[in-house]
Amino acid sequence: MKLKIKDVNFLTGGPFVSIINKNDAQEIDLHPGDRILIKKNGKKVISVVDFSENHFIKRGEIGLFDEVLNNLGGKKGYVNINLAQRLKSLGYIKKKLEGKKLNKKEIFEIIKDINSNNLNEAELTYFVSGCYSHGLDMTEIEYLTESIVKVGHKLNLKRHPIVDKHSIGGIPGNRTTMVVVPIIASLGFTIPKTSSRAISSPAGTADTMEALANVSFEVRDIEKIVEKTNACMVWGGGVDLASADDKMIKVRNPLRLDPHGLLLASIMAKKKAVNASHVLIDIPLGNGAKIESLIEAVKLKRKFTELGKKLRIKIKVIITDGKQPIGNGVGPNLEAIDVLKVLMGDGPKDLMNKSIKMSTIILKMLKIKDAKKKVLDSLNSGKAYEKMKEIIKAQKGNIFRPEQLKYGKFRKDIHSTRNGKVKKIDNKDVSKIARMSGAPADKTAGIYLNKKLKDKVKKGELLFTVYSDSKKRLDYALEMIKERNPYIIS
Amino acid sequence: MKLKIKDVNFLTGGPFVSIINKNDAQEIDLHPGDRILIKKNGKKVISVVDFSENHFIKRGEIGLFDEVLNNLGGKKGYVNINLAQRLKSLGYIKKKLEGKKLNKKEIFEIIKDINSNNLNEAELTYFVSGCYSHGLDMTEIEYLTESIVKVGHKLNLKRHPIVDKHSIGGIPGNRTTMVVVPIIASLGFTIPKTSSRAISSPAGTADTMEALANVSFEVRDIEKIVEKTNACMVWGGGVDLASADDKMIKVRNPLRLDPHGLLLASIMAKKKAVNASHVLIDIPLGNGAKIESLIEAVKLKRKFTELGKKLRIKIKVIITDGKQPIGNGVGPNLEAIDVLKVLMGDGPKDLMNKSIKMSTIILKMLKIKDAKKKVLDSLNSGKAYEKMKEIIKAQKGNIFRPEQLKYGKFRKDIHSTRNGKVKKIDNKDVSKIARMSGAPADKTAGIYLNKKLKDKVKKGELLFTVYSDSKKRLDYALEMIKERNPYIIS
Repeated sequence: MKLKIKDVNFLTGGPFVSIINKNDAQEIDLHPGDRILIKKNGKKVISVVDFSENHFIKRGEIGLFDEVLNNLGGKKGYVNINLAQRLKSLGYIKKKLEGKKLNKKEIFEIIKDINSNNLNEAELTYFVSGCYSHGLDMTEIEYLTESIVKVGHKLNLKRHPIVDKHSIGGIPGNRTTMVVVPIIASLGFTIPKTSSRAISSPAGTADTMEALANVSFEVRDIEKIVEKTNACMVWGGGVDLASADDKMIKVRNPLRLDPHGLLLASIMAKKKAVNASHVLIDIPLGNGAKIESLIEAVKLKRKFTELGKKLRIKIKVIITDGKQPIGNGVGPNLEAIDVLKVLMGDGPKDLMNKSIKMSTIILKMLKIKDAKKKVLDSLNSGKAYEKMKEIIKAQKGNIFRPEQLKYGKFRKDIHSTRNGKVKKIDNKDVSKIARMSGAPADKTAGIYLNKKLKDKVKKGELLFTVYSDSKKRLDYALEMIKERNPYIIS
Repeated sequence: MKLKIKDVNFLTGGPFVSIINKNDAQEIDLHPGDRILIKKNGKKVISVVDFSENHFIKRGEIGLFDEVLNNLGGKKGYVNINLAQRLKSLGYIKKKLEGKKLNKKEIFEIIKDINSNNLNEAELTYFVSGCYSHGLDMTEIEYLTESIVKVGHKLNLKRHPIVDKHSIGGIPGNRTTMVVVPIIASLGFTIPKTSSRAISSPAGTADTMEALANVSFEVRDIEKIVEKTNACMVWGGGVDLASADDKMIKVRNPLRLDPHGLLLASIMAKKKAVNASHVLIDIPLGNGAKIESLIEAVKLKRKFTELGKKLRIKIKVIITDGKQPIGNGVGPNLEAIDVLKVLMGDGPKDLMNKSIKMSTIILKMLKIKDAKKKVLDSLNSGKAYEKMKEIIKAQKGNIFRPEQLKYGKFRKDIHSTRNGKVKKIDNKDVSKIARMSGAPADKTAGIYLNKKLKDKVKKGELLFTVYSDSKKRLDYALEMIKERNPYIIS
């Protein structure tokens, strides 16, 4: 059927959808949710079809969204549509949902269709459900990782070794990446780091780095930045190094699902896409962290190690203290201030020590002698800080000193109501308050922690400060604190 | 945030979605997929939010679809939006996905949110996935059934007993409903039947009944039709007797999932919504039927019986021969011709016998003596046919005789290429060919079977005829037949 394009003029952000008139649909026996093959000048797109009554899309028209129009290469003229064949991947998704194992070809077919936007949201969700309900074995995770890498873009660096690191999320602050990367790069090793933005946390590494420099670059630009500085700290979602994974993450969000298999594949695909040879994985363990039980942490560690072998990547996994936030700042600017201070030889001790420890382990993985000494030298000599400035410049940034970073216009100090010791700082509550105060969209918002676990506290002493650029948001956060103060003093 | 309505002017047909400008979203820290509470003159709607760049929805505007606008009661003016609270049902859905049992309150919460369009497609899909992957126990199915009934509309008939029947799908033809309903009604019993339209088959009972009369009515109209004639045969999707279930069926379609628990709840909720006291369930068993193994059929039978007890509905389940189509016609008009002929004392023997058997069982369930004799009397005396005419009239129809029904303009006879006996007639192939010829959208399209299982066939003898109103569609169907002739003669 030949139809005239009507530009619907917005992005669905999801699977391809097109709209045709109900009567046209009836004529060629299309049902809502059917797939059609849309052809225009030799270009093809498969899209899910939806129907319109007469007033929006008239007979002979087809409403197309920006994503489809871009893929067809033109917003004017006519297209030809046909009922598309049933996708093979749907059968494989059903198989997984029934608890059966998938083979290499089947997993590739699913990932390929996810990446090409051939699956609608329900179908994609069924796949994630199957992985969550029945789990994936190590071989399936290996195939999944490789398939995600295969259908995405890769960073083409002619270097070896290539180092990478990853921290399992959930701990506010914890910006070790922004200290470790300049240390390692300053010692002459290559460490191209892609990071995520916050989803439900007050800042991801990409959000915090963005307080200092740009983080959205094309693959070719990233390659140039790494060639120049040995490193980068960019937003992974801005380049489609593992776009199939990004699409899966999107449907995992509403229920906040983290099936181990998908988590492993998601992390390792991103390492493989930058061609990493040595990877350090940090699993913070503690109440309110993503991983709350030692058994689970050890299980995950074993899986990472096994997957590393299968993918021929040297992996070291450390389980670290995740009982409280790392560093004092929580929120993009506040965290960036901590990072710059540490690189300048000052700043929160826990962030500094954890970064030194991680950098040392990385050097040991690379079989470098006197690893710890070299790490301390880099920090103390100011080499790591110089490298950080280089990276910021290469990423078109111009913030190099803590004083250049703004705090929220509105602030509120929270004081202790009793004498005692800090017994608990709830990670989840800290995240929630920082988020309510406006982070990460408001870069100046967040929390600055004045006391950490085991610190002595006197009645009336400052526990923490909340910052926000909006009075209303600050008030929201304060209300939340009244209900659930993240500190327990006793 | 106060925003001006922009009428986006089409139906999404799914969960409520609204679109706001990316910059407005950023200002109030909304993320794609977040829920917002939209208020207008005291009316409230919860909707999932999507973002637009500047060109479609400008700052200060909100793009709303027809469903949302109808619920807000106005297409002009301003609305107020706020971030909506996280839905409790999401936690329960996750629980199910992890294989845990849900209690009454949890299931009700989920069904309520499904019915109010509060869940987006991914979330709804997760619930169906959980039910598919982990199953539902009988108590969960009971709660599910009751919740679906509670949030939907009910037929308010002051009668007792109320009879209903249901055939598990998958068998082409099989229009016993349209024979059984007039028989039972002609004997003075109440049988308000709602049926489905075809999803992937060439006709549902609602499609075939539509060849004779209207099938879309409001609840109040259906009550009047039943008061007048003791019966009705209407499209269930046209009244929201179990709309939460209709929404679940929509996301089950792409993978063609039939989790037993949802199937049972779906069927029984529709029976309970018409306040049925006696229900006959027909499970056709055979290759190419929905239920292909005897073990599965028996399991399903046991579950129906148990669920009936819990819901205090008297249930009888029969497992019937589903090895081949029932009747000779497949497609709305062709099936309607079979039905009218049977009611007039002629027509396909298998359809007639199965209908007599089912009607007899229903009378026995009602403890009526000489059940079979009464059924035969009703048919032979023409009372059942007179009742059918009454029902057709009450449903504003005017087709009473087979001759009034048209056949497709184009036809093709398929002859046997050898002597022998009919060894197989493939249900799925028959459905597919009838569907390709244009059924159910083209009411005149379909297949007329001239031979049934075990019939002797001579070389050159007519096996079946394909009808269509479109030459192109007939050609499609014929190509399909070349590849997969549904008949095996040997």
